[in-house]
Amino acid sequence: MVSDSSALAQHLDEVALIDQHAHGCWSTAGDRQRFENALNEANTEPLVGSGFDSQLGFAVRAHCAPILGLPKHVEPQAYWERRRQLGETELARLFLPAAKVSDWLVDTGIGADTAGTAEMAEWSGNRAHEVVRLEQVAEQAAQAPGDYASAFEEILHRRAATAVGTKSILAYRGGFQGDLSEPSAVQVAEAAGRWRDQGGTRLQDRVLLRFGLHRALRLGTPLQFHVGFGDRDCDLHQANPLFLLDFLRQSGGTPIVLLHCYPYEREAGYLAQAFNNVYLDGGLSVNHLGARAPAFIARLLEMAPFRRILYSSDGYGPAELHFLGAALWRNGIHRVLRGFVENGDWSEADAVRVVDLIARDNAARLYRV
Amino acid sequence: MVSDSSALAQHLDEVALIDQHAHGCWSTAGDRQRFENALNEANTEPLVGSGFDSQLGFAVRAHCAPILGLPKHVEPQAYWERRRQLGETELARLFLPAAKVSDWLVDTGIGADTAGTAEMAEWSGNRAHEVVRLEQVAEQAAQAPGDYASAFEEILHRRAATAVGTKSILAYRGGFQGDLSEPSAVQVAEAAGRWRDQGGTRLQDRVLLRFGLHRALRLGTPLQFHVGFGDRDCDLHQANPLFLLDFLRQSGGTPIVLLHCYPYEREAGYLAQAFNNVYLDGGLSVNHLGARAPAFIARLLEMAPFRRILYSSDGYGPAELHFLGAALWRNGIHRVLRGFVENGDWSEADAVRVVDLIARDNAARLYRV
Amino acid sequence: MVSDSSALAQHLDEVALIDQHAHGCWSTAGDRQRFENALNEANTEPLVGSGFDSQLGFAVRAHCAPILGLPKHVEPQAYWERRRQLGETELARLFLPAAKVSDWLVDTGIGADTAGTAEMAEWSGNRAHEVVRLEQVAEQAAQAPGDYASAFEEILHRRAATAVGTKSILAYRGGFQGDLSEPSAVQVAEAAGRWRDQGGTRLQDRVLLRFGLHRALRLGTPLQFHVGFGDRDCDLHQANPLFLLDFLRQSGGTPIVLLHCYPYEREAGYLAQAFNNVYLDGGLSVNHLGARAPAFIARLLEMAPFRRILYSSDGYGPAELHFLGAALWRNGIHRVLRGFVENGDWSEADAVRVVDLIARDNAARLYRV
Repeated sequence: MVSDSSALAQHLDEVALIDQHAHGCWSTAGDRQRFENALNEANTEPLVGSGFDSQLGFAVRAHCAPILGLPKHVEPQAYWERRRQLGETELARLFLPAAKVSDWLVDTGIGADTAGTAEMAEWSGNRAHEVVRLEQVAEQAAQAPGDYASAFEEILHRRAATAVGTKSILAYRGGFQGDLSEPSAVQVAEAAGRWRDQGGTRLQDRVLLRFGLHRALRLGTPLQFHVGFGDRDCDLHQANPLFLLDFLRQSGGTPIVLLHCYPYEREAGYLAQAFNNVYLDGGLSVNHLGARAPAFIARLLEMAPFRRILYSSDGYGPAELHFLGAALWRNGIHRVLRGFVENGDWSEADAVRVVDLIARDNAARLYRV
Repeated sequence: MVSDSSALAQHLDEVALIDQHAHGCWSTAGDRQRFENALNEANTEPLVGSGFDSQLGFAVRAHCAPILGLPKHVEPQAYWERRRQLGETELARLFLPAAKVSDWLVDTGIGADTAGTAEMAEWSGNRAHEVVRLEQVAEQAAQAPGDYASAFEEILHRRAATAVGTKSILAYRGGFQGDLSEPSAVQVAEAAGRWRDQGGTRLQDRVLLRFGLHRALRLGTPLQFHVGFGDRDCDLHQANPLFLLDFLRQSGGTPIVLLHCYPYEREAGYLAQAFNNVYLDGGLSVNHLGARAPAFIARLLEMAPFRRILYSSDGYGPAELHFLGAALWRNGIHRVLRGFVENGDWSEADAVRVVDLIARDNAARLYRV
Repeated sequence: MVSDSSALAQHLDEVALIDQHAHGCWSTAGDRQRFENALNEANTEPLVGSGFDSQLGFAVRAHCAPILGLPKHVEPQAYWERRRQLGETELARLFLPAAKVSDWLVDTGIGADTAGTAEMAEWSGNRAHEVVRLEQVAEQAAQAPGDYASAFEEILHRRAATAVGTKSILAYRGGFQGDLSEPSAVQVAEAAGRWRDQGGTRLQDRVLLRFGLHRALRLGTPLQFHVGFGDRDCDLHQANPLFLLDFLRQSGGTPIVLLHCYPYEREAGYLAQAFNNVYLDGGLSVNHLGARAPAFIARLLEMAPFRRILYSSDGYGPAELHFLGAALWRNGIHRVLRGFVENGDWSEADAVRVVDLIARDNAARLYRV
């Protein structure tokens, strides 16, 4: 992918990544509308116009087409026809190994039609590990018998025993602004009672969201947050990670990982400098930025210490996305770091070492994989 | 302007633009102070220091001077002297055709000393169409006899019959934050009564501003919003388009066009991805960024689907601005897209097609011109 | 430092800077932990991991090592050993002259272990001038006998008589959001009474902070504000300079200087365009951005008129920082302006003139040094 004979380019081609936040790829067949909608993250309605008419769509045609034996920049119609012929499992068996990812950390909290960790491992020929979504644990606890807090704790500990970390989608359930301190047992019991009376689905209650976060902090394993852009159910200005400042001040030593971060990647980098336990990645954003990914990757390399930056694809649905994240990241960071070296600001050995930190060493240390 | 022998460069030189948001150029003579103040958007007081000492001032000397037969980068004094010799009408007859714009969409809501659509068409030798400013309609309705809501509706429909869209400057009249739902008839009548009692000028009443927006939505033609930077009467942080999220969720299918957008162009691009009916441009910003315009144009090409990005100059006053917007856009997007092609992320055919979409096809489809 | 034979490059190598905002460098010996912590601005706890693993750390190894006779990109251990051998005074005598700064404007409000203006002048072989920190004046007034307002006024005028300006760290004492109008004499007396009863240390009282700002406005000398990123005691979203809009509208003609500005440099540039009396710099940010400084310096050159942009290092502690700010600024602005010239947007003579404005002419005019 990266074309240049330098040691840096060669290293980027070869290094095996840890994809520290992804979802399953599709495990069932679907139509073209499903595929094109998956090229748009933010819209929650059927797309008007083609999903291919975007940076992500162009990047699929440029970087994924050759994996399917098609020419670069192939037309959407031809791309779709080849894709349909192959089917989702076959696509996964092509794209997942091509990403050269040794470990997939899979948020299993969404996607009835998507692969679990076992299929991700099998199709890629590598390892997969689970990340437990806190809001899903809460919804399981709401349906369990007995005391809510005890049920939450029991489910969380049982699932966490085989998982590498937890994840919160607070950004989609009211956002970061406002009090995020730990609620009292009485407040939790009252809130759980109200929520269960209403059916106990799709957690939006602030008290119970806060309760879940603080339980996750006590586990001590990394806690991931969706930050910044996602679908429009999320009020983007409420997903600015600066609103997490008070929470971070209370977070003790538990690692907090800020995911995606667009357009708040500079704010996230600042937080990574400000707190020993804050990490960030640019997953999801890199895919949607396509040809513009290098500029974004460069901004991730501003205020954050280099031992706090991670790689992820946030792939979900089309297996293309699990591959494309890796391809765009390798190309993008190559362009950025080569520039630093050419300008005399970094040595090439520095650049190779920072690649290893972001590609895998930081994640290996953090998640113990 | 664009110097390079590629198909992309040649296409950019030739394509006729639709300038989807501009005002009239000056139709009356003025002094040097007027001209230099027009090189600064944000300041509402007489400038201290020269308006030429800015990116826009440098861009005028680089790109406009040759149109007047002067060398590139000519000194301000020489530029001013040539400009003064020619007069505003002659300047318009030089700069407007040089922009290679086939259609001007003109917001006629300000500028007693500026050209109307008829003069813009005559001086450019091309077509001009009206965009109706909602706050002006309100101020006309306040002075009309009888019921305010009926008067507003009558004036809006009469003017809209020959116009291609509407425009709101809510950003200057309190900003986007807060409730933007449709008020009741009783609320409108009460607010109109109060406003008329106070003289009925310069609409600031929130109820009546909301009323105007929802009437415009029902027209179904595109509704443009001033977004981001402008003069300092606008609280810039209140002009962040993310505060429009709830309004957009209620907007049905009526196209909403986010204008200018600096420094919120990434947020605006996200909204264009999130809603099928949201569009954006970078008018005004491109002129004021001058040599820095390419970096901004690149960010406009991030999250927004390519069928939702438009061209405009937002030219107002000096005819230089109507030309310069086009010149800087052609140069800037050429630099950006050439980079995408050279890096293998886009094909050159892709780049040419996206140029056509932004230059004119998207606007032609949207405004039916 | 700047390697290129153009007139611009040569001029950048030679121009003497005015560093319009710095602190003293260390005057006492310290251990490696102190040094590495000084490579991180935001964190207030002992660092986990090396302070060298950051853009600033890499920049020290690239640009400061040669000043100590070490190879570029030397390993941290070797850098530290050489540094320790030399001691702080010797380091200052190497790094301060190497910055080619003719005048240091020193905020003396912090740093018991750091150089005052006399030592800064002596060690650099050039001039140093004082900037008076308003919150320190307040804390001195709280400890003085008699009426608080009179004491504040007396101390401020006495100190300002030999100083070139004032500085506020309101960003660290509650942030910019909220009322910043001038309080009444009664309000000031009441607030001062409460504060003195509580000990009169570390001013956080909003009334007294506002009082100090308005007294500084009356002095008429430039008033500097910490803006944007700093240590995590500051809520970064409360340090957005747009929240100063109302204050700026009341500020009369007194120059207001926005310091650092990351990640709000585009907002700060807008304010410099909007108000005749607003200035900005990128000190502190440039050091922490290291190899990414050129992109930031480019954004400082967007909306702000060129006569309102200033240079500073914000160096504090290690003398490396006073030098590195200058080195990174010379390299970064060279890269940016050379690009403008190569693209035909600026003439080389324009670029040289703007270098002079930012390097020293604007500051010389503003501070009368």
